[in-house]
This record gives sequence, structure tokens and C-alpha cells, in this order.
Amino acid sequence: MSRKLYDLAGADPQLRFSPYCWRIKLALAHKGLSYETIPWRFTEKDEIAFSAQTKVPVLVDGGETVSDSYAIAEYLEKKYPNGPALFNDIGTRSLTRFVKHWAEDTLHPAIARLILPSLFVLLDPKDQPYFRKTREAAFGMTIEDLASKRDSYVPAFKAALVPFRRTLEAQAFLGGPAPLFADHIVFGALQWARKGSAVPLWDLDDPIQRWMEAVLDTYGIEN
Amino acid sequence: MSRKLYDLAGADPQLRFSPYCWRIKLALAHKGLSYETIPWRFTEKDEIAFSAQTKVPVLVDGGETVSDSYAIAEYLEKKYPNGPALFNDIGTRSLTRFVKHWAEDTLHPAIARLILPSLFVLLDPKDQPYFRKTREAAFGMTIEDLASKRDSYVPAFKAALVPFRRTLEAQAFLGGPAPLFADHIVFGALQWARKGSAVPLWDLDDPIQRWMEAVLDTYGIEN
Repeated sequence: MSRKLYDLAGADPQLRFSPYCWRIKLALAHKGLSYETIPWRFTEKDEIAFSAQTKVPVLVDGGETVSDSYAIAEYLEKKYPNGPALFNDIGTRSLTRFVKHWAEDTLHPAIARLILPSLFVLLDPKDQPYFRKTREAAFGMTIEDLASKRDSYVPAFKAALVPFRRTLEAQAFLGGPAPLFADHIVFGALQWARKGSAVPLWDLDDPIQRWMEAVLDTYGIEN
Repeated sequence: MSRKLYDLAGADPQLRFSPYCWRIKLALAHKGLSYETIPWRFTEKDEIAFSAQTKVPVLVDGGETVSDSYAIAEYLEKKYPNGPALFNDIGTRSLTRFVKHWAEDTLHPAIARLILPSLFVLLDPKDQPYFRKTREAAFGMTIEDLASKRDSYVPAFKAALVPFRRTLEAQAFLGGPAPLFADHIVFGALQWARKGSAVPLWDLDDPIQRWMEAVLDTYGIEN
């Protein structure tokens, strides 16, 4: 197969938790494009040196290499215009950028404070020192301190989800009757939350849970 | 003129501060529709009893009466399809609903905690008891307590704006090269903030300020 996606993995190579990689796995499925994933760890920088940067996702599509999840989505939309659209039109594309920033600037930090300690223990041991160093610098405290303060971070996580849940009470997907790349972005964030958390972060009857299952069903992905 | 908008006003009838009314004034301008506003106060329920509900905006368009800002926007899009679109397509329309909930569930409460005390003194005296009663019930504390805690609410307001500012660093408007109803929604929130606050809430060189001026310029509105 000529389409490969470098995909962040844990100690268990089947554990794929990167919110940015999930976006692209859904975007590829949305376009009806087959691919294989290559499990990759944070410290395997040499493995993706050919991409001229240090993070996944990295998509190798025949002879082309693309990195950065948003750039990959834009690449797919341009390269495969006959598949279902990821953005539809200029209005959708522009509002999707707001969803991206909302996910990255509001939702991701709220999730990270809840799951970094439980995610840490799921990582490949060779990744743990790197993860500890970078995340402790980002949050200004140790992973153990984050864990001890976990309860205090729950309200911000719950508050962050409110506008998303209320949207899902009015329509099936962010994009309307079917998912668009905006859905893939938020799915990535919540999949990361689900895979990295030691405890459920929302109820099984939450509209968010129903939406996650509907996204997976749309693309025939198991979990 | 046959198109009238009931528009929330302060003690000074020129002070128009409702985020929901601002949405509709911009949406009407976007569609190129002329209208006159009728200043209205919170306690003048009898004046809009004909609309079978108790809040503004209320649009009287010839023989039709429409209330609820989102319903008014949808009415305008359907009634005046030849004017510039407020939503463009199904993707834009669906993502606009997320922007609405983000504005109402995240941004509005963060703004309210900063401005309710300063807005209170700008209201018509006959409205002040109603405003005090409803807002103190909503926030679970007195307006004076809100004022005394103001500094503690600034970080949440600044955090809420981050994804919006980052979007504006990449494109001129939420809707892309020109404003759409999603822009009108956020403009309404920030216009309410600006009109109700005793102090500036963002810098003059903030991308948010440039965007507000660009929205006003688009529609030839003074302030």
C-alpha cells in the first residue's frame, strides 16, 4: 500500500491516542482513502526526519510527504477533490479554523490536566522522560502535582464541553447531518481523552457519547 | 418604514447594548435591509406582548413578527434569499450553531461577570430592580459581590477569547474574507462587553479590536 501514516502509539502498539493523528485517520476515511499506520513514539525523531520536522501525524502519500494535521487535511481536500468534502465551502473552512483553535486552546488544556498522569503510565518507557520533561514545562508543575489536583480541574473540563453538547442536542454532527473535518478535530480531542483517562469522563447516555459512536459508525472504525 | 426592530436600551436611549439585538442589526445590514429601531426597556413587557413572548429582539417585518435572534436570522435568510447569505451552506449553518453556543455558554458568562455591575448603573432606573433580581439569581450573588470579585474573573474572560483571537490571526473574519452570521454573533457579545464595561477589556492593537472595526466598516455602522 502506498499511503502511510505515522501514528503516535503507547507501550502497547495498538494504543493510538494522538488527537492530531485521529483527525487525519478520520479525514482519510472520510475521503474513502485506504492507508496503513506506522506506530511511532515521541522519541523516534529519526524515523520521521525525512519530513523535516519532529511531530506526527506525518502522511506519506505515494511520493508526497505532508506533516501538520491541518496542512494534511488541506492537502487531502485539494488532492482528492472528488471524495466527500472535508470543508464544503469557504464559510465552513473558515469556521473550522475556529473549531480547531477552540479544540486546541480550550478543550485540549482542560483534557490534558485530567489525563496526563494516567496517560503517562501507558507510554513506552523510553518516551516517559521526554513526556515528563515537556509536559511538566508546559503546565509548570510535576505530573504528580497534576494528579493530586485532578479534582480541581474537572469543572473547567465540564464547562468547556457545554457549547459542544448543546450543539449536538440540535443536530447530529458539528457539520450538520454528516461529519466534516470540524467533527474530526473534536473527535480527536475526545478520543485522546477517552484513551488516556483511567476513568470515564462523560456518561454513556451523554449526547457526546452518542456522537462519538455515530462518528465511528460513519467510517466503520471499531474504537 | 415598514421594518421595525425592538432594541434594548439604557437610561440613555442611544445606549444599545443587547448582544442578541446587535446580532440582528448586523444581519439586517448584511442583507441590505433598512429598518428603524424602537428603544425598549427590560420592564416594558406590554410593548412586545403582541410577539407572544417577553424578550427582544423582536422584528416586525411588514405583517410578520419574529422573535428570538437565531429564529430571526433564519427568517431573514429564507425571506431574503437574494441578499448576501448569512450562513452560505449546510456546513456553515451547522458550525454557526456551535459558535452561537460557544458565545452564549462560554463567552457571555465570562463577560457578564466583568460588566454586570457597570452595566447596572447605565440602565433606566425602572429596569434596575428587575435586572438586579434576575442577574443575582443567575449568578447566585449580589451585584456588589460580583463587583468586589471582578479581578478574579478576568483570567476566565481572557482565556475564553484565545481561540477567537487566534482565528483572527489567520483570517479576516470568522466567516473568512467577509463576515457571516457567526461574526454577528460574536460581535454582539463583544459589543455588549464594550458598551457595558467601565474600562477597556482589550487593547487597541488587539486583533479583536481590528476585527470589530472591520465589521462596523463593512456595514457602515458608526459604533
